[in-house]
Amino acid sequence: MAQNSSRLTYLDIVSKGKELSSFLLSFFPNSKKVYIQGENRGVNVPFRQIKVAHNGSGEATDHSFFYAYDTSGPYTDPFAGVEIGSGLFPLRAEWIEQRGDCEPYEGRPIKPEDNGWVSVKDKAAILLKNGAQKLPLLKKRLPLRAKAGRRVTQLHYAKKGIITPEMEFVAIRENLGRKGSSLRQGKGPLYSQHSGLAWGASLPEEITPEFVRKEVASGRAIIPSNINHPELEPMIIGRNFRVKINANIGNSAISSSMDEEVAKLVWAILWGADTVMDLSTGKNIHEIRELIIRSSPVPIGTVPIYQALEKVGGIPEELSWEIYRDTLIEQAEQGVDYFTIHAGVLLRYIPYTANRLCGIVSRGGSIMAKWCLAHHQENFLYTHFDEICEILRSYDISVSLGDGLRPGAIADANDAAQLSELFTLGELTKKAWEHDVQVMIEGPGHIPMQLIKENMDLELKHCFEAPFYTLGPLTTDIAPGYDHITSAIGAAMIGWFGCAMLCYVTPKEHLGLPNLEDVKTGVIAYKIAAHAADLAKGFPGAQLQDNFLSYARFHFQWEDQFNLSLDPPTARLFHDENLPQPAAKHAHFCSMCGPKFCSMKITEEVLKYAEKNKLTTDDAFLEGMKEKAEEFRKIKNIYI
Amino acid sequence: MAQNSSRLTYLDIVSKGKELSSFLLSFFPNSKKVYIQGENRGVNVPFRQIKVAHNGSGEATDHSFFYAYDTSGPYTDPFAGVEIGSGLFPLRAEWIEQRGDCEPYEGRPIKPEDNGWVSVKDKAAILLKNGAQKLPLLKKRLPLRAKAGRRVTQLHYAKKGIITPEMEFVAIRENLGRKGSSLRQGKGPLYSQHSGLAWGASLPEEITPEFVRKEVASGRAIIPSNINHPELEPMIIGRNFRVKINANIGNSAISSSMDEEVAKLVWAILWGADTVMDLSTGKNIHEIRELIIRSSPVPIGTVPIYQALEKVGGIPEELSWEIYRDTLIEQAEQGVDYFTIHAGVLLRYIPYTANRLCGIVSRGGSIMAKWCLAHHQENFLYTHFDEICEILRSYDISVSLGDGLRPGAIADANDAAQLSELFTLGELTKKAWEHDVQVMIEGPGHIPMQLIKENMDLELKHCFEAPFYTLGPLTTDIAPGYDHITSAIGAAMIGWFGCAMLCYVTPKEHLGLPNLEDVKTGVIAYKIAAHAADLAKGFPGAQLQDNFLSYARFHFQWEDQFNLSLDPPTARLFHDENLPQPAAKHAHFCSMCGPKFCSMKITEEVLKYAEKNKLTTDDAFLEGMKEKAEEFRKIKNIYI
Repeated sequence: MAQNSSRLTYLDIVSKGKELSSFLLSFFPNSKKVYIQGENRGVNVPFRQIKVAHNGSGEATDHSFFYAYDTSGPYTDPFAGVEIGSGLFPLRAEWIEQRGDCEPYEGRPIKPEDNGWVSVKDKAAILLKNGAQKLPLLKKRLPLRAKAGRRVTQLHYAKKGIITPEMEFVAIRENLGRKGSSLRQGKGPLYSQHSGLAWGASLPEEITPEFVRKEVASGRAIIPSNINHPELEPMIIGRNFRVKINANIGNSAISSSMDEEVAKLVWAILWGADTVMDLSTGKNIHEIRELIIRSSPVPIGTVPIYQALEKVGGIPEELSWEIYRDTLIEQAEQGVDYFTIHAGVLLRYIPYTANRLCGIVSRGGSIMAKWCLAHHQENFLYTHFDEICEILRSYDISVSLGDGLRPGAIADANDAAQLSELFTLGELTKKAWEHDVQVMIEGPGHIPMQLIKENMDLELKHCFEAPFYTLGPLTTDIAPGYDHITSAIGAAMIGWFGCAMLCYVTPKEHLGLPNLEDVKTGVIAYKIAAHAADLAKGFPGAQLQDNFLSYARFHFQWEDQFNLSLDPPTARLFHDENLPQPAAKHAHFCSMCGPKFCSMKITEEVLKYAEKNKLTTDDAFLEGMKEKAEEFRKIKNIYI
Repeated sequence: MAQNSSRLTYLDIVSKGKELSSFLLSFFPNSKKVYIQGENRGVNVPFRQIKVAHNGSGEATDHSFFYAYDTSGPYTDPFAGVEIGSGLFPLRAEWIEQRGDCEPYEGRPIKPEDNGWVSVKDKAAILLKNGAQKLPLLKKRLPLRAKAGRRVTQLHYAKKGIITPEMEFVAIRENLGRKGSSLRQGKGPLYSQHSGLAWGASLPEEITPEFVRKEVASGRAIIPSNINHPELEPMIIGRNFRVKINANIGNSAISSSMDEEVAKLVWAILWGADTVMDLSTGKNIHEIRELIIRSSPVPIGTVPIYQALEKVGGIPEELSWEIYRDTLIEQAEQGVDYFTIHAGVLLRYIPYTANRLCGIVSRGGSIMAKWCLAHHQENFLYTHFDEICEILRSYDISVSLGDGLRPGAIADANDAAQLSELFTLGELTKKAWEHDVQVMIEGPGHIPMQLIKENMDLELKHCFEAPFYTLGPLTTDIAPGYDHITSAIGAAMIGWFGCAMLCYVTPKEHLGLPNLEDVKTGVIAYKIAAHAADLAKGFPGAQLQDNFLSYARFHFQWEDQFNLSLDPPTARLFHDENLPQPAAKHAHFCSMCGPKFCSMKITEEVLKYAEKNKLTTDDAFLEGMKEKAEEFRKIKNIYI
């Protein structure tokens, strides 16, 4: 029986203990975790198998299973036995060790200011207050870093022609639903799909490890994978792969606690978040981050300037390269997979924001702007970018070049401040690539629909096809409380145009910190946007889920329709509000139209009637219509 | 104090009695109803005035009010004194009478089968059960129809060069926010907006009554306005006007009652529905419709075949032209403003649906398909279309040519069945225009993003720019429970491309009958889509609301931010979840980032600092950037 989640609190998740996986799986009836093994030892790629009753003919069929991309990690594997706070198995440890280019070292000592300058006594008090004492202490590993003179990034290996286990893992994962996949069982209409319009993306019928390597080598895709995050199940971000989504979590000084953030992580990946950013800014942020990374099968991103600012008591003017550098090392040793770095906020661009309706809305951007002005010096993230890259390549941390001057209002879209920064991000992209550092580019923000494609095209051109990673964009400012919708519109469009990852926006955007329900709503809205984008690009295999679900819908397989959907419990709940009886799950109607008016029921009868009466259409007429339809289809060319 | 609505039931609305307007206005703090008078007697066009605290300079300003398009009718006018069931003032009665081309007549007697074949005794029992006995009986007016040989449609008048009071009403209404509007008070950055990309729409800076007349005369726009619906506040549907949205209400045999449907009507127009379709199919549908129309300031649409089918006990084969014709007259006399008529479902197109994944999903389409096959005759709606038009022109009922063969799954999009029907709808458009009947064209449905523009372009070409009215389209099938989002994406896009009205989809689509909260969610999602489309087209004045709201956001005018939004209580509720204290409404931060990290607060400081230190940018550099930005902007031309 599927669970309703609308009243869930993080304590419900934290309290499950060893029952966590069965609790989480209860949201996905008829689903179970399956793995495909790769050639490299330890490459076991997870998928969610959904059993369906599909058998239009009444016979057993070869498509009784649907396979979904699975971001939820060991949490939905009953055999893994993980719970909140237990940490995950370091599946990549062996791969990293075998490359022989890293070494363990003592690491940087943890200082009180890493957790916000609280004394040891204060810290214990805060942990107690937050209920974190219930979490077992994680065994501390020695951090790894590159041996002297070595570069340990996936980009470095790719350029050298090496296919890493991470690349093989990703290839199997992305191949799902395509012709080369061992999980693709069937043929026929259920397996066909529309031609897409890919806007220059290259979408092969089969994803091979070699294709992954080439994409990484070219900089068109990244595999964020810090060597200190061995728990990671590798994933890839690039426009020739499935469009990904990111969920932001993290406490703020006003609200939320430590175990709450881990519960949010598990919750976000359960519903489909591909990466998670920890944007914590309150107390205990080092501890929270440690727990999040040790608990995460997906890449974790951060914005290190947030913590650096905490270390100087929240006063941007007091930031320095030394404090920032120290923070990078601290987080690198913990295993953060990508850093947002606002190195493109240059002193000379700041005055462009003065005439904006909403000035600077990026937190990182505003911090750096204030620093630049206070010191009348160039942004130290820009001037020290080479040193930053030297650190990143020693841990394989990807850089997500932050758009500190992104527009925060429709009025400010695509203006000089935003575009100037974008050109600088292009310059920094080249520099990072020289260091073999993996790069993606962050994008806006608030953009009306007619200006979205310009954003994508400028990014591709000026950042040399490095993956684009946008926040939304929101297509109007007038609906606070519904910005998951204003932005899902823009996200779907920019995903179609070539954006590689979409940062979710929750209903609480602009208003407050999201709770569990907001996190879920944001993730589902963005799964919709990303999937709509994959469909529109003509991503091979993307339409399979639509086809399976629509088949179930048409054949009144209500359980299948729920189970194949992004959110089975909600679909079931909505259906059951009016028709709770078990028999209604086999009924050939729903409460929307009632039994007499169901068009699909009538259509069933129409089709039976047509068959019985050997009703066919005049062949010549059909032929003529086909021609006409094709002629009209050519009109589509106005797009290109 | 704004009201939260999530637990509201229709009884809360019905029970308000004379307090209804203050209850409804409580959802929109600082708002009040204002009217602009036209030159024609009785032309009083309603707007919602929102008082805002905007005064960046600290001084009194000329933009202390924002004006919003107002669909809520007299229900939000405390001086109108209306309540559920009281009916509305017939503001158009005088206009209609003065044209001198109509006459009252006895009208068709109401038969038991009009309410679903219930006996008089049964009927009373059902009314009692539904609580309808609480509603006062409406005074029965004699119906009007055109005098012999006269055509009483807005299209007829427009072609004759006559500007009706309805056209003047619409012109004032649509002129809101434009240069010619008396409600546009200010100048400066708050009043500027981006250039749009209008895809061939013609969007003048000022909407005059003559412009409205020309658009109606050309068939590019319609003003649905049955002469038997004098309570109507006229509105216009056409791609050179604001994009409109429709909300469906109506009971089904499974669920919901009479006063519930009127409560849904009031609720839908409160949040912004421009028209409402009554899709009732259960018992008492004549009575429900009567109450809805008498209670509605917005055009009411229906699908008469639904009621006709009730009259033959739900058996499509037993339908006949005579029963259908009788139903048209019945509903015409009640005042329905537009009829969905599935006259394009031709016998020879039906076999095209046999190979679809989801067959026929339109209720009307499946009914007519079954009739055609059972009789092996051409659709009687097609063969009797001239007679239908003769009825419509005698009452000024617009025809909404139904897309009975629209796709119900991504897999079935833009196929031969759908496009064949579209071409037939074009043929019927011309025929209706010959009768001076106003026409719009219904569209799909389920369409992946890359095929949306083709739909719009084919409609414009083959239906001669008659207004397009689409259901969504849904851009993926995989998210039942979230189809307001899957479809808001497609709706925003097709609205941008030229669609004139968007039929909302609620979260319950495919699963059940929407409740009040679903209706609201559907309306808000579609207000977002329609507004995003207006912005993208560059609709004059559309960006004003975004600018006002973003200005309030940047200046931490929390109350203004809530009040200018589409749903003030929800925005406030989300904010207050973490910061309920009154002082937080003036705080320069929210719980999302906390006090130290608010980027907008830091930006305030940046701007102050820059000003204090006379920080300017090198002029030559600025000039160069401007040129570069303009050069990049030219890339947009790839669209055209």
